[in-house]
Amino acid sequence: MSALPTSGLDRGALAPELLQSLRAVLGDRLHLSEAVRRHHGASETHFEVMLPDAVVFPHSTEEVVAVVKACVAHDTPVVPYGAGTSIEGNTTPVRGGVTIDLSEMNRIVEVRAEDFDVTVEAGVRREQLNEHLRDVGLFFPIDPGANATIGGMASTRASGTNAVRYGTMREAVLSLRVVTPEGRDIRTSRRARKSAAGYDLTRLMIGSEGTLGIITEVTLRLHGIPEAILSAVCSFDNLSGACDTVVQAIQLGVPLARVEILDDVQMRAVNAWSRLDYPEKTTLFFEFHGSERYVEEQVETVSALAAENGGSEFQWSNLPEERARLWKARHEAYYAAVGLRKGCVGWPTDVCVPISRLAECIVETKKDIEAASIPGPILGHVGDGNFHVVFVVDPNRPEEMAEAEALNARLVRRALDMDGTCTGEHGIGLGKQDWLVEELGEAVDLMRAIKRALDPGGLFNPGKIFSL
Amino acid sequence: MSALPTSGLDRGALAPELLQSLRAVLGDRLHLSEAVRRHHGASETHFEVMLPDAVVFPHSTEEVVAVVKACVAHDTPVVPYGAGTSIEGNTTPVRGGVTIDLSEMNRIVEVRAEDFDVTVEAGVRREQLNEHLRDVGLFFPIDPGANATIGGMASTRASGTNAVRYGTMREAVLSLRVVTPEGRDIRTSRRARKSAAGYDLTRLMIGSEGTLGIITEVTLRLHGIPEAILSAVCSFDNLSGACDTVVQAIQLGVPLARVEILDDVQMRAVNAWSRLDYPEKTTLFFEFHGSERYVEEQVETVSALAAENGGSEFQWSNLPEERARLWKARHEAYYAAVGLRKGCVGWPTDVCVPISRLAECIVETKKDIEAASIPGPILGHVGDGNFHVVFVVDPNRPEEMAEAEALNARLVRRALDMDGTCTGEHGIGLGKQDWLVEELGEAVDLMRAIKRALDPGGLFNPGKIFSL
Repeated sequence: MSALPTSGLDRGALAPELLQSLRAVLGDRLHLSEAVRRHHGASETHFEVMLPDAVVFPHSTEEVVAVVKACVAHDTPVVPYGAGTSIEGNTTPVRGGVTIDLSEMNRIVEVRAEDFDVTVEAGVRREQLNEHLRDVGLFFPIDPGANATIGGMASTRASGTNAVRYGTMREAVLSLRVVTPEGRDIRTSRRARKSAAGYDLTRLMIGSEGTLGIITEVTLRLHGIPEAILSAVCSFDNLSGACDTVVQAIQLGVPLARVEILDDVQMRAVNAWSRLDYPEKTTLFFEFHGSERYVEEQVETVSALAAENGGSEFQWSNLPEERARLWKARHEAYYAAVGLRKGCVGWPTDVCVPISRLAECIVETKKDIEAASIPGPILGHVGDGNFHVVFVVDPNRPEEMAEAEALNARLVRRALDMDGTCTGEHGIGLGKQDWLVEELGEAVDLMRAIKRALDPGGLFNPGKIFSL
Repeated sequence: MSALPTSGLDRGALAPELLQSLRAVLGDRLHLSEAVRRHHGASETHFEVMLPDAVVFPHSTEEVVAVVKACVAHDTPVVPYGAGTSIEGNTTPVRGGVTIDLSEMNRIVEVRAEDFDVTVEAGVRREQLNEHLRDVGLFFPIDPGANATIGGMASTRASGTNAVRYGTMREAVLSLRVVTPEGRDIRTSRRARKSAAGYDLTRLMIGSEGTLGIITEVTLRLHGIPEAILSAVCSFDNLSGACDTVVQAIQLGVPLARVEILDDVQMRAVNAWSRLDYPEKTTLFFEFHGSERYVEEQVETVSALAAENGGSEFQWSNLPEERARLWKARHEAYYAAVGLRKGCVGWPTDVCVPISRLAECIVETKKDIEAASIPGPILGHVGDGNFHVVFVVDPNRPEEMAEAEALNARLVRRALDMDGTCTGEHGIGLGKQDWLVEELGEAVDLMRAIKRALDPGGLFNPGKIFSL
């Protein structure tokens, strides 16, 4: 990360009255040191580091309200921050201002096991939540890989490995508590499973990347831990055999809980990083959930399909520790990819296409990558039509950055031509703004109008999704 | 219906230039007759009839754009209209203007069986769609009972009997084509199964009841027709035994496809209306979907739970014609209820509460109804925590209207106290505006700000959801 260009070091200090107000609210939870600011200006990927002027760590929604009111009164931007695991520069404070780090708002407010829901503060991380829930037999399925905060996952409309069965943050969130640019503390919905009460503010806030409000609490739908969980690994000689297996399984109505594709390059990276010895070929990682009998039935169906499509025997397991090892390797796939080249950073792509076009989209992209000078392992949530290439680039070589950009452009164009999207789950942030316009045209003007209506000062995470 | 008060008969005519513009676009699909206007000013329920000034029947999105531009230029309201089956006065043209009836935009644009999706014009009805899909082995699950249009169902965020398994219109819609108050023709999303591309305009439009745009095309997610479908009927001596059975089944993870509750009064009405002879006790109607083996497993589990909770033996069937008869009776339950008293109209309620509170909410409500002077059968989508009372009132007796209103108020207050919603699936329309504010407080101001931003002239279905 340190190899990336940095700006904002010499930013003018905040207005003394603002600092005074912030200190009055937060005491020593107002940070001005370069180290803390640098941490909050960096990201996991290839974006320039840009420092905020200050970082605050509120402990309550009331403190967030006070921070927002103080900042707005001084025409100062605010940027919400969770675990810093976002991918498209979503938390980069491009106009400086105050980064509101919600990681200390990490209380699990209330578990309601009978209703299959839970209310958490925005800074709770998904692993923390699932550990907390284990004893009551419930789990929160959305799993973007990184141990992200629930608030951050809502902000970017995250999804990940379980989305094929359990949906994305769009489906997982029942209700949000949000601090608006006017400093209001609102709740977007009651706790009923469904409602037709006016505009869907919950879904409007999900994916708005902090540009319309700061999420401070999230009420989530939960699911019962299935009676039986079985994971399986299956390798293929080619990408299309793997894709066809998944498409056919979905068409037969098999409720796959997880199905991840990793190409040969990604498998080589995973083996090296996680000290495993899988065949270095295109591989599917599966997980099946249900009753013992139903899981057995699912595995029968899918293993037969895999065999017809040139897949290997299933290497399967129902042992928790083996499953954990498998998914840990999958979760570290991004770091494994970046680990392919020392001193390099990851440039992740994120298209999602209608599933009938997925095999074609992946195969064409693989050809591009094979002709490129930089490595680009492929991994994807293949049941949703969503996949990533992680280009591994040296940030000090402009020609590599340009090559990654050109390859990404070809990929996004291909996905749009297939009626797909430029971002399945990472959001727009800084990286996809031109593509958003390409994808949705004049509809983006409606988004701008909503932004202006709810944040007339343009102070909430400015410069993200679009420049006004 | 004719017993209801009527207004708008003597409305001033539209501006001659506007009529000329509309006639130029639509020819004889511009209607000014009282009969057509009256039809479009009435509703299925207890609201006053209010006539629009004109009704148009466009055949394309381009024609809708032309109508919108002409109306906006003459400061004239537009109200979209589908099948007229909404419940809360959602299509009542309170300020007159032009009602845009989309029922002749009823083409199924494209079925993409491999992607499990379909694009339809807004005027396609759900039964028409399912007949069309049957041959390809797919179905569209959302079923509000009435044979509504897909556009109307999106507008009100409809759901119904299958929501417990397949979700609501919120989950079913992939993308919308919408004509905005500025006369733009936009698409809210591409066709990928998931996307993080900016604000979720699809979900914003769903449930906005035509106040932000007119939906002209809808792309829907479809599902495979299950290998096995089994329906079952089970009666109980009391409401709480039935509710507990459902709650326990859901807690065990049984993926009920449908589970409907009908109380003794509703069962009496259904027997009389549909000439059936079910026991006139609290009854659950179930439907199970899956493989043969999996459906069998589900039925085993649920029938055991029912027995523990005082339920009768399951009266079950896997014959399509018996299932059809059962669900036809369920779908006619509203008319059956209204049929309990000649010359009367229905006043339907629509609360939804967290499922742990459902039994208590229904039992308390039943006590209110038993003490009332008007009948109020109860029926509900019990798996979602959503139920309806249909008060059957004589619209010429103000004391009955007042009693229904007071009973509804007690019910909504009870649901809000349980962190529920004033409307699970009917929308706000005219009937729930004060309750919306009660339910969501200042969040409603955000909705108003969005409305003003996207429809600054306030011409799109004015007076619905809120008065500005």
